[in-house]
Amino acid sequence: MSKDLDQLAISTIRLLSVDQVDAAQSGHPGAPLGLAPAAHAVWKRMRFNPKNTDWINRDRFILSNGHGCALLYSLLFLYGYDLSIQDLKQFRQLGSKTPGHPEAHDVPGVEVTTGPLGQGISNAVGLAIAQKQFAATYNKPDFTLSDSFVYAFLGDGCLMEGISSEASSLAGHLQLNNLIAFWDDNRISIDGDTNVAFTEDVIARYKAYGWHTIEIAHGDTDLDAVSKAVDEAKSIPDKPTLIRLTTTIGFGSLQQGTHGVHGAALKADDVRQLKEKFGFNPDEHFAVPNEVKDYFHEHVKENQKIEAEWNKTLASYVEKYPKEGKELQRRLSGKLPDGWKDALPSYKPSDKAAATRKLSETVLSNLLPVLPELIGGSADLTGSNLTKGTDQAEFQPPANGLGKFSGRYIRYGVREHGMGAIMNGIAAFGANYKNYGGTFLNFVSYASGAVRLSALSHLPVTWVATHDSIGLGEDGPTHQPIETLAHLRAIPNLSVWRPADGNEVSAAYQSAIESTSTPHVIALTRQGVPHLEGSSIENASKGGYTLIKQDKPDVIIVSSGSEVSISRDAIAQLEKAGIKAGLVSLPDFHTFDKQPQSYRLSVLPDGVPILSVEVLSRFGWSKYSHEQFGLDHFGASGKAPDIYKWVEFTPEGVADRAAKTVQFYKGKPILSPLNTAF
Amino acid sequence: MSKDLDQLAISTIRLLSVDQVDAAQSGHPGAPLGLAPAAHAVWKRMRFNPKNTDWINRDRFILSNGHGCALLYSLLFLYGYDLSIQDLKQFRQLGSKTPGHPEAHDVPGVEVTTGPLGQGISNAVGLAIAQKQFAATYNKPDFTLSDSFVYAFLGDGCLMEGISSEASSLAGHLQLNNLIAFWDDNRISIDGDTNVAFTEDVIARYKAYGWHTIEIAHGDTDLDAVSKAVDEAKSIPDKPTLIRLTTTIGFGSLQQGTHGVHGAALKADDVRQLKEKFGFNPDEHFAVPNEVKDYFHEHVKENQKIEAEWNKTLASYVEKYPKEGKELQRRLSGKLPDGWKDALPSYKPSDKAAATRKLSETVLSNLLPVLPELIGGSADLTGSNLTKGTDQAEFQPPANGLGKFSGRYIRYGVREHGMGAIMNGIAAFGANYKNYGGTFLNFVSYASGAVRLSALSHLPVTWVATHDSIGLGEDGPTHQPIETLAHLRAIPNLSVWRPADGNEVSAAYQSAIESTSTPHVIALTRQGVPHLEGSSIENASKGGYTLIKQDKPDVIIVSSGSEVSISRDAIAQLEKAGIKAGLVSLPDFHTFDKQPQSYRLSVLPDGVPILSVEVLSRFGWSKYSHEQFGLDHFGASGKAPDIYKWVEFTPEGVADRAAKTVQFYKGKPILSPLNTAF
Repeated sequence: MSKDLDQLAISTIRLLSVDQVDAAQSGHPGAPLGLAPAAHAVWKRMRFNPKNTDWINRDRFILSNGHGCALLYSLLFLYGYDLSIQDLKQFRQLGSKTPGHPEAHDVPGVEVTTGPLGQGISNAVGLAIAQKQFAATYNKPDFTLSDSFVYAFLGDGCLMEGISSEASSLAGHLQLNNLIAFWDDNRISIDGDTNVAFTEDVIARYKAYGWHTIEIAHGDTDLDAVSKAVDEAKSIPDKPTLIRLTTTIGFGSLQQGTHGVHGAALKADDVRQLKEKFGFNPDEHFAVPNEVKDYFHEHVKENQKIEAEWNKTLASYVEKYPKEGKELQRRLSGKLPDGWKDALPSYKPSDKAAATRKLSETVLSNLLPVLPELIGGSADLTGSNLTKGTDQAEFQPPANGLGKFSGRYIRYGVREHGMGAIMNGIAAFGANYKNYGGTFLNFVSYASGAVRLSALSHLPVTWVATHDSIGLGEDGPTHQPIETLAHLRAIPNLSVWRPADGNEVSAAYQSAIESTSTPHVIALTRQGVPHLEGSSIENASKGGYTLIKQDKPDVIIVSSGSEVSISRDAIAQLEKAGIKAGLVSLPDFHTFDKQPQSYRLSVLPDGVPILSVEVLSRFGWSKYSHEQFGLDHFGASGKAPDIYKWVEFTPEGVADRAAKTVQFYKGKPILSPLNTAF
Repeated sequence: MSKDLDQLAISTIRLLSVDQVDAAQSGHPGAPLGLAPAAHAVWKRMRFNPKNTDWINRDRFILSNGHGCALLYSLLFLYGYDLSIQDLKQFRQLGSKTPGHPEAHDVPGVEVTTGPLGQGISNAVGLAIAQKQFAATYNKPDFTLSDSFVYAFLGDGCLMEGISSEASSLAGHLQLNNLIAFWDDNRISIDGDTNVAFTEDVIARYKAYGWHTIEIAHGDTDLDAVSKAVDEAKSIPDKPTLIRLTTTIGFGSLQQGTHGVHGAALKADDVRQLKEKFGFNPDEHFAVPNEVKDYFHEHVKENQKIEAEWNKTLASYVEKYPKEGKELQRRLSGKLPDGWKDALPSYKPSDKAAATRKLSETVLSNLLPVLPELIGGSADLTGSNLTKGTDQAEFQPPANGLGKFSGRYIRYGVREHGMGAIMNGIAAFGANYKNYGGTFLNFVSYASGAVRLSALSHLPVTWVATHDSIGLGEDGPTHQPIETLAHLRAIPNLSVWRPADGNEVSAAYQSAIESTSTPHVIALTRQGVPHLEGSSIENASKGGYTLIKQDKPDVIIVSSGSEVSISRDAIAQLEKAGIKAGLVSLPDFHTFDKQPQSYRLSVLPDGVPILSVEVLSRFGWSKYSHEQFGLDHFGASGKAPDIYKWVEFTPEGVADRAAKTVQFYKGKPILSPLNTAF
């Protein structure tokens, strides 16, 4: 490719991006104008097939500064992804394939959803972890099935966010040399010059994390330097690389180098002079010179040949290593192994009471040998979350002597937000990875930004969220979730399980493992709970079901987790007082909501007052109940049984509320909360 | 103080801490055993008065690794704070003054609530900012009223959390030389040796942030080094200091240096040998040698003299500088200036429609000249949040030429979580600081960990949370909050305002400024809204009120923010169809819930079906309504009016739901959702 053609391609990318923002009169032209040369130089080096976006050995490109998505859409269009010029013209319009920030689930070729700053670079760490784990698991001395790289672009904003610090520190520790990041050092953020708030020495910081660093002084123009930097990064055996790319935001615009060009469309005369400056017709929009079109077409053809070669390699691999080959093929097809569910334990009421976190440990230990795609870890709470299965080797760089890259247990350190984004990256890698991360339920909140992106991006990750209530006891209110379940349950496309016993724990994991597009949070107790009469994996899999059925009940108690058995005991007391109470366990709102209305109404019928019982915020429970017994205040430090007594979450306390509910609704006609007007 | 006495004091601190954990059979003995010498050396140098914990010029001590709180409680007890030996014996018991993690609101002498890792060191940055701002505002060439220091202890976990990276980077930028932090480098976290996940070069990282660093090789024993390090740190004119303190976790225990000593009580024989090793009677518990008691008593007396001197200085100051002096005395008494509310703008329906973020800007611009204690900033969204008042100088180190330490506008950078914790620190400083921070509502989630601590700690900070719905338009679902209000409303002691017009914005700020113990989130629109007939600051101050009153309405619509005017237009349509609908604006659940039941029932009475209308998650609205019109899915990128049409949040769409509600409840007896059984 000649230098002139390179330049023409770059100008095309720049102007396609500017035209998108111009058509929408909304968006961010600054980053695409500054980053187009580096992006072009990187994409020239990347292996990928626009016609098979799932090819497992493709290189991944992550635009962590997602507001610059016009750049990404221009590239995807030019490289022949399923994105037309018409799509570019619909930039940021309702229903388009070119939303205001890149959305993985909706735009072909977008690897992960970015925009919320710091997420993309952290997803990239997850992708790099997955690639290392995948390669270490399936490559053979004579077969390299996986050797792809992860390229990430990130801006100053991404570097300021703590999530990127967490993920970058871990990436350095893990020696992820398959990760190559470009810092767009344009010295501008929304508040103006970065010197108002961001004057740290970024390069020194990344060196401190154990990264290799490279500096490119003229990122606006120096393609060779970018290409050489990629070579150098690829040659480093044991470190991720951060490339400082000095660029000019809004390169070529009359406002270049200012924050005026960051987040608003250029003025009409600015667009005109820009096109003239780059040798384009100022009256033409969305122009793609033929030689540019041809170049990208050729590049794709070459890349497709590479994929075809890879497919042949895979075929030989399957022949020579039928066991691994079959497993690999199964994983690439997104199927789970036959009979995997047999590994899920089930329980009888006579089985020994146990904390649901302990029951979760049993499930994980049972599933790990059956599901090679199951990997996970904890944010430095392994012994509390009980997330490590028997004999689960650690995912560590071989050099540190603590594990191996084929290990499946990840030591995340105390980095919940980074863990959440890394989990998203692992899931986005493909190969059917089912990955989980453990922390206390309360500290899932630290990762809120990543959790909502799991849900938005349809990434089936699983949070093992132990210590799920005031029942954790002495650690006190700083550690006791109150609002957390309401928060998580209000997130669309998120399954939030709070199992009451062993069978429900198994059901929660069954749902999580089977999920292909819904993330899961499994909230688990620190304290012991009994196995319930009437529970089963099958019943619990409906998200909600009747545990104690009464003929013409006076009241139905609906509950979750550790409060189900307390409610059961309350019902025994109520019976003595002549009150007939039914019991419903509702481990997951999301799953229950998907059941047919007839089933749901059979569980929570008309004509009976319903009382919900859960020892966290009552917020949201009125969706299923007429009366709510819950907490409207923070918890306290003390022995768990003492705290339960203090808040009256005892059989007596529940029975008292149930009796009051019966009394209050006596003689009143009662509609199920599930019966609604629209 | 002799070396022997120092040693005896340290042993006393260690053993009091061990005895607390032992009595509770729960807690963290490791950190107190390792950190007692450094804590002792630091507290010896600190100025504070246990009998006046609000003294504004006290040095602050922050235990960021809050799980080590037994250490802090031992010190507070020995120094004569309002904490008795009986309280130590009640460590981690329900109702005690010695909860499992230090809680600022409940334990005298605890400056900020810690435990959730990374928060304390970030609070410390806020305290240091407040001290700098306070000193620069009130010190005179001949009067130094404020020259206190902030000392923080932090562990490896705090350093792994991204929040500390955010706050530390900003602290370096701001050249906060009044901040002295000790990193307890004991190489152990819950998962064992920190080398499993945390191998970065912390000292190099902090140097990169612009911190001064010091290393102490023998933190278990070398008191002189600690004292010298404090001297050195105090002498640095323009940098915060991080002191790497190499210690042995669980020093003296049979399990010292292992994670076995981190989070569980020591075994009985271990406690015995420890006491013997330190020359104490193994059969005695909670022992305090008399000479130790006397020493601490003397120290306090000396410190009290210092405070008495300071009070004299203040008196002279008030005489010489009556204007500043009176202002200062007013602030220290926690009073707001007379007539400050006159600065709150009020509006008539004929006033021009405006985005509530714009109306918020007017309020801030009006209040800033009246309230010197009002300071705030934005997480790099100043031009979007509109958080900067006219002529609001920047809080910057004088050396960088961008502002001054008496400035009141803080450039937080893209660091929401750090900002949240820094806001908590500023509020915890005292001097009546009212401080706010701006970001998009969706990104308040990044700061969840800090927001819940504001609420738990009763710190009246204010979030200016703009772009509060799908109404932000083109930026799309990555930026559009759905679950966010449900999340925040479920947090106890948090006021979450979503004002509908100018008067409601003023009411929200009135509530925030008057608050002394409840944090506020004010959710504001990007798009314009009209000023409503019937709104007033007084009405809105009830949290919920009737905007359109009907005699015997067929339905009442209850709504918030930008959907109130849409609902109003729907009511006009319904009237034409012969349906009488009332309208209630509910800008803040928290404030409304505090009104008398009779008032609340006058707003949301029995006998009328109530429909809630809000373009975010419906979750939680059933507390106030029978039917909920809201979103159960993510938003989309597009023009705001297009998105509103897509989700049918138009007058027609609302009218349709209202008509269906009327139809559905026809003939059914209806109870207000506010009428409950218990």
